[in-house]
Amino acid sequence: MSIAIVGLGPGADDLQAPRAAAALAQATDIVGYTTYVARVPECNGQIRHVTDNREEILRARHALTLASEGRRVAIVSSGDAGVFAMASAVFEAIEHGDPAWRALDIEVIPGISAMFAAAARIGAPLGHDFCAISLSDNLKPWDTVLLRLRAAAEAGFVIALYNPISRARPWQLGAALDVLRTILPPSTDIAMAQAVSCPDERILFATLAEADPTLADMRTLVLIGSAATRRIARPDGGVWLYSPRGSIA
Amino acid sequence: MSIAIVGLGPGADDLQAPRAAAALAQATDIVGYTTYVARVPECNGQIRHVTDNREEILRARHALTLASEGRRVAIVSSGDAGVFAMASAVFEAIEHGDPAWRALDIEVIPGISAMFAAAARIGAPLGHDFCAISLSDNLKPWDTVLLRLRAAAEAGFVIALYNPISRARPWQLGAALDVLRTILPPSTDIAMAQAVSCPDERILFATLAEADPTLADMRTLVLIGSAATRRIARPDGGVWLYSPRGSIA
Repeated sequence: MSIAIVGLGPGADDLQAPRAAAALAQATDIVGYTTYVARVPECNGQIRHVTDNREEILRARHALTLASEGRRVAIVSSGDAGVFAMASAVFEAIEHGDPAWRALDIEVIPGISAMFAAAARIGAPLGHDFCAISLSDNLKPWDTVLLRLRAAAEAGFVIALYNPISRARPWQLGAALDVLRTILPPSTDIAMAQAVSCPDERILFATLAEADPTLADMRTLVLIGSAATRRIARPDGGVWLYSPRGSIA
Repeated sequence: MSIAIVGLGPGADDLQAPRAAAALAQATDIVGYTTYVARVPECNGQIRHVTDNREEILRARHALTLASEGRRVAIVSSGDAGVFAMASAVFEAIEHGDPAWRALDIEVIPGISAMFAAAARIGAPLGHDFCAISLSDNLKPWDTVLLRLRAAAEAGFVIALYNPISRARPWQLGAALDVLRTILPPSTDIAMAQAVSCPDERILFATLAEADPTLADMRTLVLIGSAATRRIARPDGGVWLYSPRGSIA
């Protein structure tokens, strides 16, 4: 009958939109990657369909099939469902799938993405023109990633890196930082924000020169400042990063 | 005593994070642009300080001064406070202001930005690498805007344009589209999303060739697809736009 594509937010309950919580409570079926489905409160009679993280198109087709059968489905992603997450996979499945799927009632419910939750904990690093790049080359050539990193750094964008590293791709964040080092000053500010808004949140600050890519994991969002990004030292030893509204390249 | 820099979300009450609502309810003082302060529910005894939209640094200093005097201040922005909004202005004021401000208790509370709310209404146009550019040249040279537009289009980013037009800058969106037309195919999909999630929401779809910049206003978020962005026709005449997860330049 319907699909709600729901962004669960970065992790903390009070950073999830009420509209998302309502859609989850009304669903007959919850579809998603194990870790994200586990964040949805259990409701009596609701069926939970959990799958491995790599099977996004299969999961999308499964959700569409359930909806065609009259179920009220919520398919969940962490952060915002439209950012390197399930919304794109659902529409890709629709385009190449049963034409009847185009008539389904589909609502995308936005959420607070990891990028903005991380930025908020760090200061205001995304206060000026910025971009988001997924480092995963599961679905695009690594050369495309490098092209975009170079273009973004040369044009003065602040850069948010999603999916910086995984067990199958341990080398990519290091390679990305090496490319950025050929363009940006060694003093460029970087933050690595892990598990933002969760109990095990950890935020590391570094310069581009000294950044250690092995400190990132799959739950880490990496923010690369532009040449205009500033670091403010606090009396307690902490720092804030921010990008002035008037940043130029 | 403290400042909460609060993102109110795009407009609808149920797209505002509960953490934002809690911070607003606990504040002794609400500081912000008139239109945004009007979105905060009135609380007994709470003082509201409203200012014109252009005075961001003055407003930030005012909030910092109030906090120094022991007040519990919430300073509000639409969408996410860290995206072309007040968070950056507050940190800029801190860096150049009273050193004691660096010891203040400052929390940035993220929100759902206009970009993600618009994308959710349109499909999944930001499903792949993307960037956000403010077209305002109040604070940066127009040449910097053009440089970033060209770099983003050439590298295959989907582009979200904030502040596309204003009474003082009626020509900028048209000029930006003209530059993009020299790089992207005429068939590139564009959406203009006005007042997303509000009662007067209006979403227009066009190709780059036919897009009419005069249809945008200050409350419009403009999304420019990449060459990989797809349009799905629906049986009711509607469309979805999405960018496949595997988009290449």
